[in-house]
Amino acid sequence: MTTVEAPETIEGWYVQHDLFTFQWSQWRTFAPAKRHQLVEEAAAWLKVQTQTEAGDSAAFNVVGHKGDLLLTHFRPSLEALNQVKVSLRQTEFFSYLEPVYGYLSVIELGMYEVIGVVKRQLSAQGLEEGSDAYNAAYQEALQQQKEALQDRLYPEIPAGRYQCFYPMNKRRGETHNWYTLSMDERRSLMRGHGMTGRKYAGRVKQIISGSVGFDDWEWGVSLFADDPLVFKKLVYEMRFDTASSLYGEFGEFFVGIRFEPEQFGDVLSGTLTAP
Amino acid sequence: MTTVEAPETIEGWYVQHDLFTFQWSQWRTFAPAKRHQLVEEAAAWLKVQTQTEAGDSAAFNVVGHKGDLLLTHFRPSLEALNQVKVSLRQTEFFSYLEPVYGYLSVIELGMYEVIGVVKRQLSAQGLEEGSDAYNAAYQEALQQQKEALQDRLYPEIPAGRYQCFYPMNKRRGETHNWYTLSMDERRSLMRGHGMTGRKYAGRVKQIISGSVGFDDWEWGVSLFADDPLVFKKLVYEMRFDTASSLYGEFGEFFVGIRFEPEQFGDVLSGTLTAP
Amino acid sequence: MTTVEAPETIEGWYVQHDLFTFQWSQWRTFAPAKRHQLVEEAAAWLKVQTQTEAGDSAAFNVVGHKGDLLLTHFRPSLEALNQVKVSLRQTEFFSYLEPVYGYLSVIELGMYEVIGVVKRQLSAQGLEEGSDAYNAAYQEALQQQKEALQDRLYPEIPAGRYQCFYPMNKRRGETHNWYTLSMDERRSLMRGHGMTGRKYAGRVKQIISGSVGFDDWEWGVSLFADDPLVFKKLVYEMRFDTASSLYGEFGEFFVGIRFEPEQFGDVLSGTLTAP
Amino acid sequence: MTTVEAPETIEGWYVQHDLFTFQWSQWRTFAPAKRHQLVEEAAAWLKVQTQTEAGDSAAFNVVGHKGDLLLTHFRPSLEALNQVKVSLRQTEFFSYLEPVYGYLSVIELGMYEVIGVVKRQLSAQGLEEGSDAYNAAYQEALQQQKEALQDRLYPEIPAGRYQCFYPMNKRRGETHNWYTLSMDERRSLMRGHGMTGRKYAGRVKQIISGSVGFDDWEWGVSLFADDPLVFKKLVYEMRFDTASSLYGEFGEFFVGIRFEPEQFGDVLSGTLTAP
Amino acid sequence: MTTVEAPETIEGWYVQHDLFTFQWSQWRTFAPAKRHQLVEEAAAWLKVQTQTEAGDSAAFNVVGHKGDLLLTHFRPSLEALNQVKVSLRQTEFFSYLEPVYGYLSVIELGMYEVIGVVKRQLSAQGLEEGSDAYNAAYQEALQQQKEALQDRLYPEIPAGRYQCFYPMNKRRGETHNWYTLSMDERRSLMRGHGMTGRKYAGRVKQIISGSVGFDDWEWGVSLFADDPLVFKKLVYEMRFDTASSLYGEFGEFFVGIRFEPEQFGDVLSGTLTAP
Repeated sequence: MTTVEAPETIEGWYVQHDLFTFQWSQWRTFAPAKRHQLVEEAAAWLKVQTQTEAGDSAAFNVVGHKGDLLLTHFRPSLEALNQVKVSLRQTEFFSYLEPVYGYLSVIELGMYEVIGVVKRQLSAQGLEEGSDAYNAAYQEALQQQKEALQDRLYPEIPAGRYQCFYPMNKRRGETHNWYTLSMDERRSLMRGHGMTGRKYAGRVKQIISGSVGFDDWEWGVSLFADDPLVFKKLVYEMRFDTASSLYGEFGEFFVGIRFEPEQFGDVLSGTLTAP
Repeated sequence: MTTVEAPETIEGWYVQHDLFTFQWSQWRTFAPAKRHQLVEEAAAWLKVQTQTEAGDSAAFNVVGHKGDLLLTHFRPSLEALNQVKVSLRQTEFFSYLEPVYGYLSVIELGMYEVIGVVKRQLSAQGLEEGSDAYNAAYQEALQQQKEALQDRLYPEIPAGRYQCFYPMNKRRGETHNWYTLSMDERRSLMRGHGMTGRKYAGRVKQIISGSVGFDDWEWGVSLFADDPLVFKKLVYEMRFDTASSLYGEFGEFFVGIRFEPEQFGDVLSGTLTAP
Repeated sequence: MTTVEAPETIEGWYVQHDLFTFQWSQWRTFAPAKRHQLVEEAAAWLKVQTQTEAGDSAAFNVVGHKGDLLLTHFRPSLEALNQVKVSLRQTEFFSYLEPVYGYLSVIELGMYEVIGVVKRQLSAQGLEEGSDAYNAAYQEALQQQKEALQDRLYPEIPAGRYQCFYPMNKRRGETHNWYTLSMDERRSLMRGHGMTGRKYAGRVKQIISGSVGFDDWEWGVSLFADDPLVFKKLVYEMRFDTASSLYGEFGEFFVGIRFEPEQFGDVLSGTLTAP
Repeated sequence: MTTVEAPETIEGWYVQHDLFTFQWSQWRTFAPAKRHQLVEEAAAWLKVQTQTEAGDSAAFNVVGHKGDLLLTHFRPSLEALNQVKVSLRQTEFFSYLEPVYGYLSVIELGMYEVIGVVKRQLSAQGLEEGSDAYNAAYQEALQQQKEALQDRLYPEIPAGRYQCFYPMNKRRGETHNWYTLSMDERRSLMRGHGMTGRKYAGRVKQIISGSVGFDDWEWGVSLFADDPLVFKKLVYEMRFDTASSLYGEFGEFFVGIRFEPEQFGDVLSGTLTAP
Repeated sequence: MTTVEAPETIEGWYVQHDLFTFQWSQWRTFAPAKRHQLVEEAAAWLKVQTQTEAGDSAAFNVVGHKGDLLLTHFRPSLEALNQVKVSLRQTEFFSYLEPVYGYLSVIELGMYEVIGVVKRQLSAQGLEEGSDAYNAAYQEALQQQKEALQDRLYPEIPAGRYQCFYPMNKRRGETHNWYTLSMDERRSLMRGHGMTGRKYAGRVKQIISGSVGFDDWEWGVSLFADDPLVFKKLVYEMRFDTASSLYGEFGEFFVGIRFEPEQFGDVLSGTLTAP
């Protein structure tokens, strides 16, 4: 079995997802003034993050038992992500948080389709693959793509009242192994997968971030929607795509309700979602 | 291998199962007045949940080592489930609970049979699949089904002295893969599985809730019965159904004994089940 | 692949195994009077359990790092098991125990052989399978079996200085799947397995308890012997039986040395097994 | 597939490996006199264990993050192992240890070769397999072997500055299954495996202990050497033996540096291995 | 299936990776003087490690949720690694660290290519494999290699602002099993893998360390680069090499930003990476 060609990818913001449990039992023993002070501190910290010059941050109130607070950060560098992390740890508010999960990745656009088009164009121009002229033209085309895709590489965190996050791999099983499929087979499977996704256009926004070399799965998937049922419908329908049914492996799933810095007190008093 | 058709599903209440261990050693050091106060607080909280306008809640005393308290909530939205969660965390009683497991899902009815019938009807009417007329008729039929199934989508928590809860997946193995079976194969397997279930009609009530996109397995199964041996008989017999033997994967199992809000003190003093 | 017939089983006592670690560091700081009081409390609690009207209880001092105390309870109902659990948690002694493992199951006798005989008898009587007469005769035969097997369904905890406990499954692999074997294949494999067991008659007593629908494996196996080497010899020899080699999956193993309520102090002072 | 013959084994000392982490942060707050007292207590306890009448004990300073203290005990019974465990838990020193791993097993010699020879001899004598005369001669030969192998069944803990310990299984995969191989196939594979081991004679000593029925893997392997690189060389070379490449499954690996009771203070002050 | 030949390897420094979480909540309650004292203590300890006579040490600020501090140590012996470990545990600073991961290995150079060349030379000289003359010449050639490769066996920790560390295995699956491939097949796969690596020369430095017999995976991989995106590009491209796609299994991934001893205070105050 011969080694197959790796796909071209281009990358944008670095991404950190962080999940925390809140220490409710301590919280309820605090006097209102103390609570107020901690809420102000948390809200101020979050506000700074959401107003960063380069990147974006958003906060979600986690539904269910897995945690209470899900923070998502897009930043231009690992250093900037680290700044977010350490600045939170300098607050008193952090004393009442227990980190329970996190994920490090970088926004990634797979170039399966684009590179296919570029290569056909370069061949049509009579350039020989591997020649200096070919390589220069290829790098120029890739750079043009990167510029054309600035909005998708360096986006704001998409709107949507809910976020669903999960990590995933492409399977390297003994029978079904994504990494031994030919470039054309993988391109065709990704195309089919994309077509399922497009049925949900307007109802869900998706950010794919790569984490090979950074974290324990190969990709993170962040979905944003105003109706959480769309997460279930989309992920379930995609599970029947061959790209998922034969080759997808999925980690833990997390769902949260978005809130703004000034709603931090509502989250902690349970009035964010009160009727 | 080509992508197969995903089944239609319709959804009702959102569902949260929560499992807690009780901090018995602290509890036994409390004076009777303190215990009384905490029991009253817990009972009052639970009573509010069980009398919710939309949805239902029930409490179970967990048998064995996995925990002490299993709470099951049906609610119309993630926000309403979150309200249940945070309101419990505002009580002093919560200081003596340790969350040890939970599961987020939404009541789901698979439409394998119904959609088969509808499609045959639409074809018999001469409508062409994919045409606007076909799609409109299909959506109308789906809506009619949803209305006809209100009682099953938005049920009270079924009666029964015991609950058995477990999550499950359909296997995506390298040889046996549910998600590559044709719609007809899956329909036939689900029909056989349903026939096994029907032998237990009157002895056990079952709620299936979908959790793709919400939690770490694909479905939650909640069984309710007056004789706990029925759980074993049903699950064991079903394990020989091809739908389970080749395609079922099962998570942890939990069993609890139902109690009412006013029995919270009996649960904690061990007199709930005393002779 | 068609669904195969599930075997008939009959059930007796419910069973709970509980494993605890003891908080030795706290214990050694207590004055003799305090230790005496706690030992008396623990011994009194255990004595009540071992003298229950219906069922039985026994205590074992766990060998090795997995824990210190293994309790095994047979009881007629989940309620009675729950009573055992909560009454322990009402003691001060429980403050010095940390639960580390547990298993919920129910004593089960598989009827592979018996049902084979009954079915041949009913056929020989000219009764047609599925007819009312056949079903009535079948239920009557099953009931007779249950009465004949009272001693094995509702036993005392077997004698033997040591207990070995482990949970197990029958494999549902992609190639070797117990749940797709025919009734005759399974009967034949269980018969071979039983023959290996019979070589150890007189040296080891075995209790099989079913846990499908109750706990995370399908069966619990409790072995009792006066020589612990017999556990190794038996389980190792059985591992070469086809029923185990192709179809057995095994969980954690626990081994303990039996002690009586009045020996609780010896267990905690380390003089139980002193020379 | 028919059940194959289980190999004969003979057993010697029971074996317990115990791994502890030391609570360094508490330790460093103690005054020298307190440290001295605890070191004396630990050293005295260890000295008693190493001077046991029947069996042996040795202590190792664990390298790396997995723990600090690895204790290995050989004893004639589970009761004697339990005595070791509980006597440690009666010390104050134990308050500063956290148990993090352990393994229970019994020294085992596989009789693949010996039994093959014995059977050929008995056949050559014209005895019929299964006859009373054959069985009596067989048991007598086994007993002779056991006597001849006393030194290997009841050894001191081998010399060597380092110990490497790991548990292992023989695979029961769906394709490659040790427990369905014929006795001759297994004998041949074990013979090849032993030949790789013999290349390391003089540089490493190996103790194999069986744990079927006692702990979660089937065997424990304890290697002793004066050069730790030999562990890597030996285990890596053996990994290419068919007995390992197709049939070996390995658990966690632990490595420690041996120390004597009077060096306990050096271990805790970090001067054991100081230049 | 016959046992295949194991590859020759040569080894250099022993390697320990250690990951710690910092107790931020305690830290923020300390007065500046106390913080200063702890920072000085930590910086002094780290400075000693980085200035060791034989070996090297480096510190990294971990990005994301997995920890805060990643320490990498190269040393000539297990004793020297143990000294590093225990000396840290003697500091007060260690009281505010929680060890969360670690890895023990030894720098390893695989000799697939070299040994191939040597063997061809010895054959060309007419030496018969296995003869004394052949063996002597072989050992001499191996020793020459070891001397020629001193710089790679006993290196400084490579430069590069970031480190990526992960452990890995070669698969021993039921279909694809590295350890049953012939020496020539493995040599060819490693050669292809190396060619992918060489494309990244100048952008990333790689240290491979073997851990068979020492830790739970077979190798550790430490990558060093000035652009962390290179980790993703390299590991992702390599995943399509047959050596990885069919035979690679990967553990957890960790990424950190390098810092010098005098920057310890910046790490803790979050100003290391501040703009």
